[in-house]
Amino acid sequence: MPELTESVREFARARDWERFHTPKNLAMALAGEVGELLAELQWLTPEQSAAVMSDPELGPRVRAEIGDVTIYLVRLADVLGVDLVEAAADKLADSGRRYTVEAARGSAAKIED
Amino acid sequence: MPELTESVREFARARDWERFHTPKNLAMALAGEVGELLAELQWLTPEQSAAVMSDPELGPRVRAEIGDVTIYLVRLADVLGVDLVEAAADKLADSGRRYTVEAARGSAAKIED
Amino acid sequence: MPELTESVREFARARDWERFHTPKNLAMALAGEVGELLAELQWLTPEQSAAVMSDPELGPRVRAEIGDVTIYLVRLADVLGVDLVEAAADKLADSGRRYTVEAARGSAAKIED
Amino acid sequence: MPELTESVREFARARDWERFHTPKNLAMALAGEVGELLAELQWLTPEQSAAVMSDPELGPRVRAEIGDVTIYLVRLADVLGVDLVEAAADKLADSGRRYTVEAARGSAAKIED
Repeated sequence: MPELTESVREFARARDWERFHTPKNLAMALAGEVGELLAELQWLTPEQSAAVMSDPELGPRVRAEIGDVTIYLVRLADVLGVDLVEAAADKLADSGRRYTVEAARGSAAKIED
Repeated sequence: MPELTESVREFARARDWERFHTPKNLAMALAGEVGELLAELQWLTPEQSAAVMSDPELGPRVRAEIGDVTIYLVRLADVLGVDLVEAAADKLADSGRRYTVEAARGSAAKIED
Repeated sequence: MPELTESVREFARARDWERFHTPKNLAMALAGEVGELLAELQWLTPEQSAAVMSDPELGPRVRAEIGDVTIYLVRLADVLGVDLVEAAADKLADSGRRYTVEAARGSAAKIED
Repeated sequence: MPELTESVREFARARDWERFHTPKNLAMALAGEVGELLAELQWLTPEQSAAVMSDPELGPRVRAEIGDVTIYLVRLADVLGVDLVEAAADKLADSGRRYTVEAARGSAAKIED
């Protein structure tokens, strides 16, 4: 992950794109990529979506979209100075206190609020 | 990152939420979290967005949203059997071939197509 | 619809919010509202989503999110000087030429490209 | 607007796409289109975004994306049995009570919560 962060940073620096990479712009780019990911899954049934990686056409496209989403999320976190994995782990611990195993079983599906 | 993947998987398993976690549903949840991130940044100027982590109220909220987005992206990749970091590195290499440093400097800002 | 456009415009003007309402900011706000709409539907089965308006708790929430999405879309179109209904009708006519009834039946589900 | 609703309904019916058009799937499609709209605006400055309709290349693309977003929003509302304009007007009235002109001037920019 640190290597990926460094690679994306260098990718932007080499192309003189740092001036475009405000948190606001990168959040929009992230949302645009998530939109492309949704578009790959939107007409599938739940069952088809569960098997999507076995589809020789759709599978690689979904993987590529996951890659794009990750690139922009990594870049956004780098620009913000946020450690992605720490931020997620902190949030997960926080959610664990709010949604205890006992209360949650079978009822809801919320990791966050 | 592997520890985070494992923690999120265990979080879902302990709460009996695996049945909700189809790729389709998780992609929607990811998009919902990205929407919350956008909402934190939407009225800021580019300059305000660049300084958002210094804001004592907004900074922690943005970090928490980054955490939520990461949790769902990690969970989605796990359910799909995709290695996030590899998928991003492959896509970045592919983009590097399509947007060469020479052609890209100062003109565009696209990592993906 | 023209009355709604006028009401939203007056709402923003009276609160001195016009300076926040750039197309860029409004598109982010629109995406944020769509994210809230997705969040209401994300864990539902297709069948549950089809019956969501009959649910006494979820139905009004989905309707309110549809209202929020519409408000920002109407405001964005107003700021851009775009006639929503004409833009949609033009795009639908264009899609009708690209996805003929004969070719499309039973195969795909795309209105746009 | 009622004519547009009818046209989109007939478009889907003629192509046998009604079975794909659950609220859940249509909300995903709406989000995908909003993602395409964001992608057109993501690297623009606020000032560039305000002038986007004067750009001979970007202007028509933004208008087409607004058209796509409207088509899916109209279709989603039709499938849900929600009157878009009424839902928006009700929400606007509700927001007007929560964000009074006096309290809001110059401070915030929220139509919804």
